[in-house]
Amino acid sequence: MTISAGPEIGVGLLGPAGVGRAHAHAYRLLPLVFWPPPARTRLMRLCGRDKARTEQTAARFGFETAGDRWEELVADPGVQLLDNCAPNAMHAAPCLAALDAGKHVLCEKPLGRSRAEARALRDAAVAAGTVHMVGFNYRFLPAVQLARRLITEGRLGRIYHFRARFADASFLDPDAPFTWHQDAEAAGSNALLDLGSHLIDTARYLVGEPAAVTGAARIFTPDRPDPSTGRRRRVETDDAFEATLEFTDGALGNVAGTNYAAGRRAHMSFEVNGARGTLVFDLERLNSLWMHLVDEAPSGGGLREIHVTEADHPWGGSWWPPGHGVGWEVSMVHELCHLLAAIAAGRPVAPVGATFEDGYRCAVVCDAILEAARTGRRVAVHY
Amino acid sequence: MTISAGPEIGVGLLGPAGVGRAHAHAYRLLPLVFWPPPARTRLMRLCGRDKARTEQTAARFGFETAGDRWEELVADPGVQLLDNCAPNAMHAAPCLAALDAGKHVLCEKPLGRSRAEARALRDAAVAAGTVHMVGFNYRFLPAVQLARRLITEGRLGRIYHFRARFADASFLDPDAPFTWHQDAEAAGSNALLDLGSHLIDTARYLVGEPAAVTGAARIFTPDRPDPSTGRRRRVETDDAFEATLEFTDGALGNVAGTNYAAGRRAHMSFEVNGARGTLVFDLERLNSLWMHLVDEAPSGGGLREIHVTEADHPWGGSWWPPGHGVGWEVSMVHELCHLLAAIAAGRPVAPVGATFEDGYRCAVVCDAILEAARTGRRVAVHY
Amino acid sequence: MTISAGPEIGVGLLGPAGVGRAHAHAYRLLPLVFWPPPARTRLMRLCGRDKARTEQTAARFGFETAGDRWEELVADPGVQLLDNCAPNAMHAAPCLAALDAGKHVLCEKPLGRSRAEARALRDAAVAAGTVHMVGFNYRFLPAVQLARRLITEGRLGRIYHFRARFADASFLDPDAPFTWHQDAEAAGSNALLDLGSHLIDTARYLVGEPAAVTGAARIFTPDRPDPSTGRRRRVETDDAFEATLEFTDGALGNVAGTNYAAGRRAHMSFEVNGARGTLVFDLERLNSLWMHLVDEAPSGGGLREIHVTEADHPWGGSWWPPGHGVGWEVSMVHELCHLLAAIAAGRPVAPVGATFEDGYRCAVVCDAILEAARTGRRVAVHY
Amino acid sequence: MTISAGPEIGVGLLGPAGVGRAHAHAYRLLPLVFWPPPARTRLMRLCGRDKARTEQTAARFGFETAGDRWEELVADPGVQLLDNCAPNAMHAAPCLAALDAGKHVLCEKPLGRSRAEARALRDAAVAAGTVHMVGFNYRFLPAVQLARRLITEGRLGRIYHFRARFADASFLDPDAPFTWHQDAEAAGSNALLDLGSHLIDTARYLVGEPAAVTGAARIFTPDRPDPSTGRRRRVETDDAFEATLEFTDGALGNVAGTNYAAGRRAHMSFEVNGARGTLVFDLERLNSLWMHLVDEAPSGGGLREIHVTEADHPWGGSWWPPGHGVGWEVSMVHELCHLLAAIAAGRPVAPVGATFEDGYRCAVVCDAILEAARTGRRVAVHY
Repeated sequence: MTISAGPEIGVGLLGPAGVGRAHAHAYRLLPLVFWPPPARTRLMRLCGRDKARTEQTAARFGFETAGDRWEELVADPGVQLLDNCAPNAMHAAPCLAALDAGKHVLCEKPLGRSRAEARALRDAAVAAGTVHMVGFNYRFLPAVQLARRLITEGRLGRIYHFRARFADASFLDPDAPFTWHQDAEAAGSNALLDLGSHLIDTARYLVGEPAAVTGAARIFTPDRPDPSTGRRRRVETDDAFEATLEFTDGALGNVAGTNYAAGRRAHMSFEVNGARGTLVFDLERLNSLWMHLVDEAPSGGGLREIHVTEADHPWGGSWWPPGHGVGWEVSMVHELCHLLAAIAAGRPVAPVGATFEDGYRCAVVCDAILEAARTGRRVAVHY
Repeated sequence: MTISAGPEIGVGLLGPAGVGRAHAHAYRLLPLVFWPPPARTRLMRLCGRDKARTEQTAARFGFETAGDRWEELVADPGVQLLDNCAPNAMHAAPCLAALDAGKHVLCEKPLGRSRAEARALRDAAVAAGTVHMVGFNYRFLPAVQLARRLITEGRLGRIYHFRARFADASFLDPDAPFTWHQDAEAAGSNALLDLGSHLIDTARYLVGEPAAVTGAARIFTPDRPDPSTGRRRRVETDDAFEATLEFTDGALGNVAGTNYAAGRRAHMSFEVNGARGTLVFDLERLNSLWMHLVDEAPSGGGLREIHVTEADHPWGGSWWPPGHGVGWEVSMVHELCHLLAAIAAGRPVAPVGATFEDGYRCAVVCDAILEAARTGRRVAVHY
Repeated sequence: MTISAGPEIGVGLLGPAGVGRAHAHAYRLLPLVFWPPPARTRLMRLCGRDKARTEQTAARFGFETAGDRWEELVADPGVQLLDNCAPNAMHAAPCLAALDAGKHVLCEKPLGRSRAEARALRDAAVAAGTVHMVGFNYRFLPAVQLARRLITEGRLGRIYHFRARFADASFLDPDAPFTWHQDAEAAGSNALLDLGSHLIDTARYLVGEPAAVTGAARIFTPDRPDPSTGRRRRVETDDAFEATLEFTDGALGNVAGTNYAAGRRAHMSFEVNGARGTLVFDLERLNSLWMHLVDEAPSGGGLREIHVTEADHPWGGSWWPPGHGVGWEVSMVHELCHLLAAIAAGRPVAPVGATFEDGYRCAVVCDAILEAARTGRRVAVHY
Repeated sequence: MTISAGPEIGVGLLGPAGVGRAHAHAYRLLPLVFWPPPARTRLMRLCGRDKARTEQTAARFGFETAGDRWEELVADPGVQLLDNCAPNAMHAAPCLAALDAGKHVLCEKPLGRSRAEARALRDAAVAAGTVHMVGFNYRFLPAVQLARRLITEGRLGRIYHFRARFADASFLDPDAPFTWHQDAEAAGSNALLDLGSHLIDTARYLVGEPAAVTGAARIFTPDRPDPSTGRRRRVETDDAFEATLEFTDGALGNVAGTNYAAGRRAHMSFEVNGARGTLVFDLERLNSLWMHLVDEAPSGGGLREIHVTEADHPWGGSWWPPGHGVGWEVSMVHELCHLLAAIAAGRPVAPVGATFEDGYRCAVVCDAILEAARTGRRVAVHY
């Protein structure tokens, strides 16, 4: 039987663990759910620092070759798409080289460790004219997409508030080892870029552009045991941050991130309040969206839970019967599906997906928050 | 690189839609998550009534051949495992033939439309000596497995109550078309076998054997439009049932199923109360288990939610980071993984998985409930 | 300033603790909230077994006299309303005497320990021609009353299901002392009459008359320490029950009660499913009602929480601002307010409140459940 | 019978509606629950602007006289306690006069419309040497008190975060009439003083002193219909605010208030994260506290709900049986009970209750937030 899927796209994946593994998983999962897929993918190269582990992962997901030098991946003319899931410090060089080589690029968030780094990447992507995307995968959760649909349709009316928090307990233990997230050079920042960037992208996605920010950041644990030396090493990046967002259209909001919230594991939650209604989301219950519409309950209090699993919901009918929830990885599958369709059609991933421009703008807001935290001043957001 | 997985098992899948599609999906997903898998699978034959659709599905999931005659599937010596996801009326004949041919068999629930049919299948499986399993997939949800672990470890003490309900709204519309579920010959019964069998298996899995049942059943919509004739056809099977369960060890419980619960989509929920604690589960929030342990809160009220996504939870660490939920399909992936391991090792799927003996016992309880509903009498459960 | 309230009604209260204390509290609270009250009450006599404690309670709530002989209370011509909150065995004699003396009577549930006892009380009340009421106070919770309003208005359409459970942990400890609830002569039955009677009244209030029942009951702890003897005494009444209800209009349901549910304290919850919607209530969150209306979400899953504290809700605006919840005792205040208005107007408390006829019918259903549990047979409900 | 309660305290209440009514209610309710009460109260004078309505309310709650001039109330030597529930602009003058006359004073929050006004009141109270209290009633909810107990006992360890929001929808309608809350002279500020002051007091009560703040405020509806003129009048006060709190001990937090949150009615919620656990509260479910203790679930996610109705909980056993929730007004009853005990014992209400010092400190933080919002700068909190 002839497979009626679109063109074949050679993929090179940088980073075999964490989000990299999730992407590898998603490439394989995609055509099982979205058939025919917008494009076939050929998993050509997997690149990681630990050669043995990379080879093992390559075998598991069916990559044709495994290596430990990203330069080889970028040099391979068969690789049309660089999927960069490496740590923050490894975002720029491979992406720039790939863009320079005329490849499409998917870069895991954050795009850069600073506004300047993100701007260079954005500029290079624009210059390259290829398809570029930043891995703000939560845009691709059905409930988040439904939230965007409802807001875009005007169901909430003028937006007054956006409040979001990403809280987990991953560094609650003061003896949890030092990682690259605590290294300013390697990470840029920690809670802000790792957790907060998702919130800022969601704010921009659902509500619009922040005009100014104030806020504060904290290091709660001054040093942590460094596995490579056996000694404690000074923590250089934020364990937590709080920021007030003032949006260009007058809405007022807050974003906050922390790795110090006992009992919270992936508590990425937000609330949007508009003139006609309210939306509430929590990643730990990702198949639901809570809603209150003034039209439904003019004088009332209380939220309506929506199981976002119906045929008329975003990506509805693609997975399981209504009420049978999906997992976190569908955000990756939907993201890649959208990216492949964009590549196949030669169009940008915007406005549904996040481009390098979105990645750059997120970096601008992050830098503004860091500056506000450092100086204690309201910092205007200028892109 | 040499794949270090176990032996290769030829699979023939009967039923390309619904649970069949979910199984096909799970065969492909399994080695992405459990690596090396306990056995490699070769998807040899997919069999369905609609030839075109079956061929399309075969292509999508990589089956080598597609056909519309199950006899060919059973006759293929390369097929070592029959995975029977056909409608209820098509469970017995293919399974019996496959067992007779010395194949391993996974039969979707319910095993039979009646106690007699299920017994014949059980007897044949025992006689064949191959590995046999019934698709009670909810055993393989992390939260259900954690519930079993807690009960088995004695954390709940002596069990007093098991209450469970499976409610959706799939036939709430009186003009929803007649399906084979409303046909007594084809289905056996409807809410009882389709929804209730899951509850009965869960009751047996977590608490033990029912000794006697009472109850009632209802048809709310006497006839439905038959798409094949354009006329309304008499509904012959139960739209809903209620049953009281009296367990051999003294516990008292209730199971209920309905397709007439507005706002409920996959509301398979249960509560277990024991001398030392309580457990609550709801399939619509499948990543959570709610618990109250007397030891934790001697005099108190209220439940503790457990996000069943930790490394030390069942199948923990196999999927995503803690707090990042999984979807309904993991029940299938875990089920098939357990089945393949049993086949590779030449051991039964019990006690973790459901054997044909479990399928038979579930049928005995279902028949007892129907008899109790019909006669208004308490019916003893004799296996 | 002249108090514009209605006539003054002399009240005699039997039972100074538990529900009796809550009633005393409610008489005093009522005119603070409902002003002018439908009638003024004069708290004339409080009667209890423990003379010292009764005198103390009388002082606290402003009763004019305290005593330990109910006969004196009934003999007092100034007492126009007997409020009988004594244990079950003390319901009949004082109520009968009061009715015989032409007094109005409020009798705490259950009306009688058996169908026969309840019938005698019902007959006497009808013969007396005074106002009679049974203390099914949950009818008077705003959320329950809203549920009734929605059902009565047809918002749920034809009712298919009513399921309710009353679960607490009050006898989970096998060494909790023997009380009169475990004494068959004193209590009639335990979980059934104490907890189940509320559920049965709610079923009748919201859905209609049960036509037949099946079920089972259990004693989990065979004996308990008797504080009066220091020895263990045999438990004679049910620790828990399960019953299937078949309603006259075809609806199918379940009621269950237990004192053996760890972590549950006052978990009186119910769900009603109709052709157009679903309602869910839980006493442990008594200010909320959860609802799904097909009209609001035609194809969807999920419930909408309603904070039942709005001005247009039952008793709305009488208590606190919207969203500021009320406590359990408002059920008593509303109940007494309704009773006093009925007395003042010389009209029965039906259909909003429960009459002795309702109390009798509840007893009939309870006896039917006990018979069904004993015999294993479906028992028809004949009033 | 001799009432064994403490001394009799003459009460003058200023403000017959809203919180004033709730206080009147609470004075009457108190001795029904806490018996003997720490002191008897004699409701001597009720003072309000609308004479007829004040007389009606006085009759309802049993005040001896009703008037419309607070000066008379303060001049009455029989009034030992001024309970000032008047609008913000009427806090200072009556309180100062009462303190000058040697009376005890309970002043509704906020103590003053500005730091200066609050300081003058605090200084006068200290000079008077009488008992003074500010009506931060949420301190007296059982769940909030339990939170304080757990934190004080060190169960949460070092505190990292405090986040709180008070959201309702009371001014969501842009045509809702102008009230004194929108008048800067009358109110000081709106969302900040009306809602935010509760959050700031809770932050100080549970976590400690804020050292610095940043933030922003918004007016969403520039003018509203003024009922007194029939024309729209300019809104002068904040409809909403967001503030970042930096605590002296290093904790980082956020407080936010808004009247523009559809579906929210009294959503005063907070979360506290410490090294050993997390607490979550929501006023719309005031009988519950959610908790996660690392000791209970070392590696886990999810919260445990505590029904704060047990005998060993704050004010446990005073109201209803476990699981039978209380209403919002218990915060007032407990507050008054504590105040009367303090008066009877001649001791301050601190540290359980809020003194004028607490009211002053809250005003300092509020002014700091307003300054931070106006200037865009981090403002240090100096008391």
